Amino acid sequence: MCDLCGKAHRENGPTSQNRRSLLFGGATLIAATPALLAGEARAEQPRPAAGDGPYPTRAWATAALGGPFAPITIQRRALGPNDVLLDVLYAGICHSDVHTVRGDWGTPPFPCVPGHEIVGRVAAVGSAVTKFKAGDLGGVGCMVKACGTCANCLADREQICLDRVTFTYGSEDDISGGHTYGGYSDRMVVREKFVIRIPPGMDPVSTAPILCAGITTFSPLRHWAVRPGQRVGVVGLGGLGHMAVKLAVAQRADVTVFTTTPGKLDDAKRLGAGAAVLWDDKAAMARLANAFDLIISTVPYAFEAQPFMDMLKLDCTLVNVGLGEARGLDPAAMAFGRKGLAGSMIGGIAETQEVVDHCFARGIRPDVEVIRPDQIAAAYDRVVGKDVRYRFVIDFASAR
Amino acid sequence: MCDLCGKAHRENGPTSQNRRSLLFGGATLIAATPALLAGEARAEQPRPAAGDGPYPTRAWATAALGGPFAPITIQRRALGPNDVLLDVLYAGICHSDVHTVRGDWGTPPFPCVPGHEIVGRVAAVGSAVTKFKAGDLGGVGCMVKACGTCANCLADREQICLDRVTFTYGSEDDISGGHTYGGYSDRMVVREKFVIRIPPGMDPVSTAPILCAGITTFSPLRHWAVRPGQRVGVVGLGGLGHMAVKLAVAQRADVTVFTTTPGKLDDAKRLGAGAAVLWDDKAAMARLANAFDLIISTVPYAFEAQPFMDMLKLDCTLVNVGLGEARGLDPAAMAFGRKGLAGSMIGGIAETQEVVDHCFARGIRPDVEVIRPDQIAAAYDRVVGKDVRYRFVIDFASAR
Repeated sequence: MCDLCGKAHRENGPTSQNRRSLLFGGATLIAATPALLAGEARAEQPRPAAGDGPYPTRAWATAALGGPFAPITIQRRALGPNDVLLDVLYAGICHSDVHTVRGDWGTPPFPCVPGHEIVGRVAAVGSAVTKFKAGDLGGVGCMVKACGTCANCLADREQICLDRVTFTYGSEDDISGGHTYGGYSDRMVVREKFVIRIPPGMDPVSTAPILCAGITTFSPLRHWAVRPGQRVGVVGLGGLGHMAVKLAVAQRADVTVFTTTPGKLDDAKRLGAGAAVLWDDKAAMARLANAFDLIISTVPYAFEAQPFMDMLKLDCTLVNVGLGEARGLDPAAMAFGRKGLAGSMIGGIAETQEVVDHCFARGIRPDVEVIRPDQIAAAYDRVVGKDVRYRFVIDFASAR
Repeated sequence: MCDLCGKAHRENGPTSQNRRSLLFGGATLIAATPALLAGEARAEQPRPAAGDGPYPTRAWATAALGGPFAPITIQRRALGPNDVLLDVLYAGICHSDVHTVRGDWGTPPFPCVPGHEIVGRVAAVGSAVTKFKAGDLGGVGCMVKACGTCANCLADREQICLDRVTFTYGSEDDISGGHTYGGYSDRMVVREKFVIRIPPGMDPVSTAPILCAGITTFSPLRHWAVRPGQRVGVVGLGGLGHMAVKLAVAQRADVTVFTTTPGKLDDAKRLGAGAAVLWDDKAAMARLANAFDLIISTVPYAFEAQPFMDMLKLDCTLVNVGLGEARGLDPAAMAFGRKGLAGSMIGGIAETQEVVDHCFARGIRPDVEVIRPDQIAAAYDRVVGKDVRYRFVIDFASAR
């Protein structure tokens, strides 16, 4: 029971389930919305938006596990008083999109329209909206709704709402029915609270990855209060990892990157890391025992975590934001130094606004490779093959 | 390399090894001291102490893994200027003594004289000792030496000395040679820094378990700053667990005990817990989702940790002081709530003094069952069979 909202907690929030149920919020129990009109022919000619909607919208979806992406037409709901209609400009490809579509975390509800690093142009606003006007830039990250009244929501941690958070895609959609569809689409309708203000002068393309990769790595740097001169380790140099490096370097931390890819060693330095180490170089790893104030693992698959635990200083923490299983932990070695493993998942809306503003003020930009929507499948293969420097961003505006 | 002492770190301190090497500090590499004179006949007639020693001392030892305890004669070193000679009165039986003797953590050096919850009477002091005089009570916990100059020692965390901590038994003894012998003996010689002052009015029998079980559970309550009214979970109600309950209740925390033994439910309440739950009662466990500010696991064997992680509030920590492997952790569920797993091991000398003084001031006493030295083996069986309420303490004084 939530202390503040008085509602019973739903299972997907507070208790352990598999990844799928945590991330898709039980949405597999719900049939796809009857409003969904699949098929390429219709997709190429979506009905025009009329007034306050609803809005037939072209979206890029998969129909089954591992299936190809194809445009379909979905309905975006009519604007409610607190809703914002966004014309999607760009959406980043997060590794979790790949995990979802390929079933690594279980079976998502289909059709699956991924995308939770979204930047769009405000096309219309509901009658009560005060935060945006038509023409503004807005961003949408990993969530689009939370209860707003539980203890966690009131602590600005909507992503772990004690009632239920509605993730941007694949979650049960209790406003429109069915499940939510993400940013691989031409339009979105989102409550204004869950739309991030993008400063007018900010580059929209490279802003998209901040909405997930940026906040995911910014939040632990803030929570564990990294200070100038402290040593921060970043495990894995992908979309999350390269943001962790940029953000920690901007805090004037002394950053060391751990990668399995020799070709990324120079990149790590270019991104501002003071050192880069191949993860299988046991001698180099051993020399770093007790050296780090914080280590952030961005590894999206199971990994041997104890070598990184050994590198932590007294009382320090290995934060697992990549959601890979941390294997082989030695409880005695952890006790010897009161070392910890913690999880961390994106951030609340206020903190997401903070990281966007922070990146704008400091000129921190993700490194992106822009692709067309018809290149999504190939991009997924390259993500899995670690062949991206460092985030794909899909350009939807130019595909319209 | 230690920042302050400039010495290279020895392997057993900072980096991961198996439990044995962490806890015995490489002592298996060292042959037993030639001064050791094994055999019951000699043991029954140890040579009397002469002046400043060395001191032939009767000790209760095992000669091989799982072997029986038998009295032998060991040499305690001659008093150095900073040494204290203790006539051992009482020594608690810690589950780690059982693990060690039975080889659960690898093979310890033999003969093995366990015991690291020791209270004795000061019989003599070295020429430079200022903290004790003959007749005082002194306590010895899990360690007897550390470098004193590394960053961790200077932070009063001698138990994780970056050079090398010498544990009370089974560690390489770089003062006397061979390996260290613990408190299951008539006498000990220990540097005064590592002897805890026991207030004159404090009950020596029930003070012994504070030197390990007490400090082990006190340290996380202090580190995670438990405040009145906060909810603390204690997993496992044995020697450590019952101290965790008493100490947390004394902080006016709202304590819930998790046990596998129905017969301990009432005990938990008697010890001050507000609630006690059978660990296999999944419905009761589920009702406690997101309820706890801190959970301390005292479980000395591998256990499924995710159900306890699920019970933590936002940003909170499951502290594993029992050194059992925390299995089945779900990284996504941990991320969902930024929940953490941390280790913690005893405490430094200052904090050990603090817990002794704290228990004296508040009248906190471990529940003990006093036994004779010839009952050690039977007591070990009862520890493993969870048949102790809640700590065996061996009475050495009455056996002399």
